[in-house]
Amino acid sequence: MIKVGIVGGTGYTGLELLRLLLQHPEAELSAITSRQEAGRALSAVFPSLRGRFALAFSHPEKAALEQCDVVFFATPNGVAMGEARALLASGVRVIDISADFRLQDAAEWERWYKVKHAAPELLAEAVYGLCEVNREQIRAARLVANPGCYPTAVLLGLLPLLEAGLVDAGHLIADAKSGLSGAGRKMEPHLMHAEAADNFMAYGVPGHRHWPEIRQGLARAAGRDVGLVFTPHLTPMIRGLHATLYARITRQTDFQELFERRYAGEPFVEVMPGGSHPDTRSARAANVCRIAVHRPREGASTADTLVVLSVLDNLMKGASGQAVQNMNIMFGLAETLGLQQAAVVP
Amino acid sequence: MIKVGIVGGTGYTGLELLRLLLQHPEAELSAITSRQEAGRALSAVFPSLRGRFALAFSHPEKAALEQCDVVFFATPNGVAMGEARALLASGVRVIDISADFRLQDAAEWERWYKVKHAAPELLAEAVYGLCEVNREQIRAARLVANPGCYPTAVLLGLLPLLEAGLVDAGHLIADAKSGLSGAGRKMEPHLMHAEAADNFMAYGVPGHRHWPEIRQGLARAAGRDVGLVFTPHLTPMIRGLHATLYARITRQTDFQELFERRYAGEPFVEVMPGGSHPDTRSARAANVCRIAVHRPREGASTADTLVVLSVLDNLMKGASGQAVQNMNIMFGLAETLGLQQAAVVP
Amino acid sequence: MIKVGIVGGTGYTGLELLRLLLQHPEAELSAITSRQEAGRALSAVFPSLRGRFALAFSHPEKAALEQCDVVFFATPNGVAMGEARALLASGVRVIDISADFRLQDAAEWERWYKVKHAAPELLAEAVYGLCEVNREQIRAARLVANPGCYPTAVLLGLLPLLEAGLVDAGHLIADAKSGLSGAGRKMEPHLMHAEAADNFMAYGVPGHRHWPEIRQGLARAAGRDVGLVFTPHLTPMIRGLHATLYARITRQTDFQELFERRYAGEPFVEVMPGGSHPDTRSARAANVCRIAVHRPREGASTADTLVVLSVLDNLMKGASGQAVQNMNIMFGLAETLGLQQAAVVP
Amino acid sequence: MIKVGIVGGTGYTGLELLRLLLQHPEAELSAITSRQEAGRALSAVFPSLRGRFALAFSHPEKAALEQCDVVFFATPNGVAMGEARALLASGVRVIDISADFRLQDAAEWERWYKVKHAAPELLAEAVYGLCEVNREQIRAARLVANPGCYPTAVLLGLLPLLEAGLVDAGHLIADAKSGLSGAGRKMEPHLMHAEAADNFMAYGVPGHRHWPEIRQGLARAAGRDVGLVFTPHLTPMIRGLHATLYARITRQTDFQELFERRYAGEPFVEVMPGGSHPDTRSARAANVCRIAVHRPREGASTADTLVVLSVLDNLMKGASGQAVQNMNIMFGLAETLGLQQAAVVP
Repeated sequence: MIKVGIVGGTGYTGLELLRLLLQHPEAELSAITSRQEAGRALSAVFPSLRGRFALAFSHPEKAALEQCDVVFFATPNGVAMGEARALLASGVRVIDISADFRLQDAAEWERWYKVKHAAPELLAEAVYGLCEVNREQIRAARLVANPGCYPTAVLLGLLPLLEAGLVDAGHLIADAKSGLSGAGRKMEPHLMHAEAADNFMAYGVPGHRHWPEIRQGLARAAGRDVGLVFTPHLTPMIRGLHATLYARITRQTDFQELFERRYAGEPFVEVMPGGSHPDTRSARAANVCRIAVHRPREGASTADTLVVLSVLDNLMKGASGQAVQNMNIMFGLAETLGLQQAAVVP
Repeated sequence: MIKVGIVGGTGYTGLELLRLLLQHPEAELSAITSRQEAGRALSAVFPSLRGRFALAFSHPEKAALEQCDVVFFATPNGVAMGEARALLASGVRVIDISADFRLQDAAEWERWYKVKHAAPELLAEAVYGLCEVNREQIRAARLVANPGCYPTAVLLGLLPLLEAGLVDAGHLIADAKSGLSGAGRKMEPHLMHAEAADNFMAYGVPGHRHWPEIRQGLARAAGRDVGLVFTPHLTPMIRGLHATLYARITRQTDFQELFERRYAGEPFVEVMPGGSHPDTRSARAANVCRIAVHRPREGASTADTLVVLSVLDNLMKGASGQAVQNMNIMFGLAETLGLQQAAVVP
Repeated sequence: MIKVGIVGGTGYTGLELLRLLLQHPEAELSAITSRQEAGRALSAVFPSLRGRFALAFSHPEKAALEQCDVVFFATPNGVAMGEARALLASGVRVIDISADFRLQDAAEWERWYKVKHAAPELLAEAVYGLCEVNREQIRAARLVANPGCYPTAVLLGLLPLLEAGLVDAGHLIADAKSGLSGAGRKMEPHLMHAEAADNFMAYGVPGHRHWPEIRQGLARAAGRDVGLVFTPHLTPMIRGLHATLYARITRQTDFQELFERRYAGEPFVEVMPGGSHPDTRSARAANVCRIAVHRPREGASTADTLVVLSVLDNLMKGASGQAVQNMNIMFGLAETLGLQQAAVVP
Repeated sequence: MIKVGIVGGTGYTGLELLRLLLQHPEAELSAITSRQEAGRALSAVFPSLRGRFALAFSHPEKAALEQCDVVFFATPNGVAMGEARALLASGVRVIDISADFRLQDAAEWERWYKVKHAAPELLAEAVYGLCEVNREQIRAARLVANPGCYPTAVLLGLLPLLEAGLVDAGHLIADAKSGLSGAGRKMEPHLMHAEAADNFMAYGVPGHRHWPEIRQGLARAAGRDVGLVFTPHLTPMIRGLHATLYARITRQTDFQELFERRYAGEPFVEVMPGGSHPDTRSARAANVCRIAVHRPREGASTADTLVVLSVLDNLMKGASGQAVQNMNIMFGLAETLGLQQAAVVP
């Protein structure tokens, strides 16, 4: 039984981790911390968990996290980088669901996150936890940087094209739409129901922190720097992320077959039949990324543009589900253990 | 391994059953029928189930349902009553999620459902599948009438009061609000998104089919006829049902303690702490009914009115979740088997 | 041209007032104050008003409100009571959309609002601005207390019954459901989209500030103290309020005709045909309260309970629309001036 | 007073027209037809219009439409082309809100709409009613083809760039998101609330009828054929349309200034300040298209891609609002008459 610690378990990724641990046969919650809720029972903070956990939140300094086998950081950015070193030194493996270890380049990280990085020496060691790319390194990793929700959807949708060198890597476009839980459990005016419901808007068009993360992942796949326009949007739903991806074809192939081959055997990537329009709810509360490949208007002047649709649940394959998938890989378990629930539809 | 058949598996209760069977360790799907979709793979009809079932929909007449251990009817009203007799004769046990066997009185059934009942002789045998009331009869039942969503929420919220004879049974009020999936997967103008979203309305105030079902259940508990005003409303959400119940107190007691005692040991009824306002999402995709007991304005002239809040997911404890709970009881399994997922929040 | 001032114009009731003033032929905005936004153009704070107002927000102390003909307080509770006296002394008439002057009894006000009342001497003078009840007093009023959203819907739905003495005034039940904008433009966790969408819950069951306001209005109509259970709920929509009202009949009459007669000639109360279920969207962005009267199950034991459905837009007839209606009455204009827009459907 | 006829007034564009006519000082409804609702009062079909119109729906053959000054077709595609000729011959001017006269090329129209065009000889005469482009021709037009919702948003967002020849016209991308009312008041499974709420999906990626309409408009502006990838999506809101547009810059300029200059004096196009992210609600129920111009990551390899955000209400500037704007132009009225309502926010 893997002993699991969760740091900062009061946000959405923490709550989702708890939901998943309840169904995981080989992992059990040993400690969960929250400065604000220390001493309160889990069920008092999360009524939906009544009767499921005997545990209470601990103060971070009294949590004995070093006795865990693995610790998940479900914290705002900036916490994990301060605490990971000590845990690793105690032999604890760390899966950081926040953004602290996602960029290899400390200077670029600091440019986007506006603070000094507290553990730049760990950036080289941290493995980017996109399982479909780095499975082998994850197996042995002490420190996994769990990918962001937008990066997961965009990277899985574009990687086959870049790995095979079939599109213009200098001019990629990712038009992405996220449900509101993607912003986390924080209070900002535009996230209020009366502001966000029945409404749709772009945000962060001049620059979004997931842009360098996506670009880094695309560049690794392409073996060269890439050009990417990334436009995130808020869509009035709770969970769900839809990336619509545009790439100019430079060399022809059977793109449907390319994607099917690339993800054959991947338990959590579904390449949909040609002509599909996967909807976000088909991934709701499930650890899956669904991808459809379109080539609109064959014969027209724009037939050289490929359109890839990539959908997932931002809290599952886009966060906590992928984090558990990483844990399974790190501990030599079946990768699908505890993650095979079907989507909640309707 | 229990061999399960599903008749009419293309609606919401059928889809929810499929989702639950995927997580049930002792039951497996043997056959699923649909006139309209016969021959199509489950994953073609329900993309969210891709990769989960090898089965295709069968035509009802070719489905070999008589080789199943149990058959669920997830059909519109009026189908199960025509097919149950033959299945029972073959030794198959039947759980009807539709309304065909919920009323004991055939004449009253026909008054509300506007057709002649095709199997009135089975009404006496059918056990009303409200587990918290009829557990022993369910164990031995050949035919279970799975309760409606409104009746489940209202009955669980009022039963302790009526069983103990503490309120005026002649003047009960159930003001209930349901998400749109409660209407089933049918197309009616007022169920369209552009009509129903950002909107709230009562319906069926002059009379709703769940009224006689609720009244029958209340009368059994009270040991006398009861008076009930039942007002259903449509609320713009997918899943979830909230019943707000009003009863005039005739004899004082510690009502919080009464409810806690009544449901002690019940795995799927949570009596919330005093002062709680359970929200519907705390039951989303989970098989649970959460109940809170309020006594507003003690000392005021209305202190004799008790307010009970009762929430559930209409597709889970209000339909398919309770149906699986019934199956577990009928087949001597742990009642909670395959039903312990936490609610999906947010 | 009536010169209008708005104090605290950055909330929802202020924004709605601005939208209405744009269409009002006899009123113009002279000053609008906000401590936080002083100096910023209206269009900078409310992009939806770009190009509509040249004005900027003023600091409250520099706003020359005393030169207005009427000042609306669209502030949180507690502001108007501190500023009304000086404005009245300058000859400015005041319409307070907040709750400061709604209760006649200062002690009761302080019990519910938890602060000392700053102008108790004005309570006797303040006219409760429910136009359908107090039209004559409003005409001459210097200070109008604009009713709350719940009170408007509940009072209009119950008044005909109490005025005529036809129901048990000791046991009234108001089960009310409000959209999220009813909570104002404030940030609280349960008002976030990811928390409130696809969710339904009761709140304030042990006690809500609108309870004494409703009870005061009912008592005036009944000529005696009344008993009221009031249960507010949050429903996942932006605007809209639905009150479902229950009253025990003590004397028979033609209730449909009673309501039609009571509201004949009222421009903003629509008594719907018998059997109607008005939905909240039929009042969206319109200054109207729609009422339907039901008498479920005639002949049954509960035939003595009347069910009244009362719907409105909480920001219109429930707040700013009614405030403009009050202004029209106070200044001798046609009561419907600037208020005749049809509901926005869908 | 302009006498207005509406053919097919039971859909969303018809209902929106009625709402607008109520506020229009120079137009009055003379006749409204519906085969299905003939004989019923408007208020019976649309409760939100109670008390506003004395008129009832007429049967199309008995409607005396030829006595109107202008007839709006608010019908499904395929109706207007059969009836326009006779009305024009009677001297009635026609504004077709459906798609029958939007494409100049009958063969292309038939390819996309799958039926033979009934009045191809009128295609040359019909003026495409995008007011900001064809104002002069509209003034004199007998027959106006009111633009589709997607085309309006996309064309207004791209025209300045193409007219000035500053971008690669061969590779334009329009990623567009629409609320559900854009599909009209029809019943299809994916438009049900329980299917569409809390969900997001692309549709029609292989080909959508608005694609040739947009391409035609872009080509006119560019003076050459253009290449366009158009990806529509359904977003879970009632009204609102957001187009995110991507164009590769071929010649530099001050793009913000370009847009401001192009739309200076346009009453219903708002070029937002640099850096803006207009949300769809800022156009809710208002006749406005809001546009923001972005140039993400200057200096990076993708600095040559311009991102334009264009939002409107699909039933207003995207349909009936623009239709009234066209009527105003055709009849020599102030273009803004009856169309100056502010957006309904929140």
